[in-house]
Amino acid sequence: MDRFQQQLGFLTEIDKLKSITRQTLLMDGETNENDAEHSWHLAMAVMILHEHGEAKHVDLLKVMKMVLIHDIVEIDAGDTYAYDEGAHYDKEEREQKAAKRLFGLLPEDQAAELRLLWEEFEAVQTSEAKLANALDRFMPMWHNYQTKGKQWQKHGVTQQMVLKRNESIKYGSTVLWEFAKQMVTEAVEKGYLQKETRP
Amino acid sequence: MDRFQQQLGFLTEIDKLKSITRQTLLMDGETNENDAEHSWHLAMAVMILHEHGEAKHVDLLKVMKMVLIHDIVEIDAGDTYAYDEGAHYDKEEREQKAAKRLFGLLPEDQAAELRLLWEEFEAVQTSEAKLANALDRFMPMWHNYQTKGKQWQKHGVTQQMVLKRNESIKYGSTVLWEFAKQMVTEAVEKGYLQKETRP
Repeated sequence: MDRFQQQLGFLTEIDKLKSITRQTLLMDGETNENDAEHSWHLAMAVMILHEHGEAKHVDLLKVMKMVLIHDIVEIDAGDTYAYDEGAHYDKEEREQKAAKRLFGLLPEDQAAELRLLWEEFEAVQTSEAKLANALDRFMPMWHNYQTKGKQWQKHGVTQQMVLKRNESIKYGSTVLWEFAKQMVTEAVEKGYLQKETRP
Repeated sequence: MDRFQQQLGFLTEIDKLKSITRQTLLMDGETNENDAEHSWHLAMAVMILHEHGEAKHVDLLKVMKMVLIHDIVEIDAGDTYAYDEGAHYDKEEREQKAAKRLFGLLPEDQAAELRLLWEEFEAVQTSEAKLANALDRFMPMWHNYQTKGKQWQKHGVTQQMVLKRNESIKYGSTVLWEFAKQMVTEAVEKGYLQKETRP
């Protein structure tokens, strides 16, 4: 019963992920998305789009688990905006500490499993992590495109910044990266995204 | 590219699940949970608690997929409150229609897969569906307990109603059902839940 109580303690604590707000807007263009919603949507994207992945065989269950847990550290560390370079300097330290506390709520074997999964996701070296990373980068771009670049404009994000930030999509899926580049071009044409950095 | 566009169309449409509000409160006791948050939390519960399931072997990826998609029909059909018996009379018809439209946005093979998964979940006959159902019933009980029965009281829900509504947990997990019954007893003792129906 101790083991069950630990597991339930973890499931209770991670309820907080539903209150961690991201910069991304829902596709209605009004509400900010939270991390739990994003994680669910990402798992759906894995389910529906994995056939476009670069690797012929991936362990789909592993990719699912990765995306479901990839933002849990933000309960303690907060969401770091993709284009906020200043906030990235201590991101790793904050997140490592968070991972230790949060996954540490679980029984030892499960704590180790989730910690390894999260580190694999962060390292973007395996086929599974590359696919998970590609979709994690693609989805906010798609949200931005669907909401006519509202958040790109708010934060002064440029075409160059978007392409640089999301280039690693190509390691997970060439199909997705080709589509993403085309989308960025159209976003500039439509005035959703500025071409150059402001002078 | 047609196939990819269809898949992306589906992923765009299901963004709406983030705006389908449930009666369940987040564990902070203030905010109503939405279906996307609930689906993510349920997938986490599958990941962490599946070892307590009744069946020795379940296809874990299938259970994951089931819980991730199980509420998508509510985008069209709305959330039907567990204890609102009046609203259940046309629930199936509303949800069948919704399933047809929503899963129908996908390429044919994926539409068929998700439709079958959803129907399997609804029928609660296979080991995978029994486990998914058990956790889907357990989690709102746990939220209610953690928020001192706020929503049970609001809707005049009684001990009898909770036990009857959630008894099918036992087909998915005896461990979970024993814990749930104990929790209900404690909820009554603590005054979170009323023992008998109001006269």
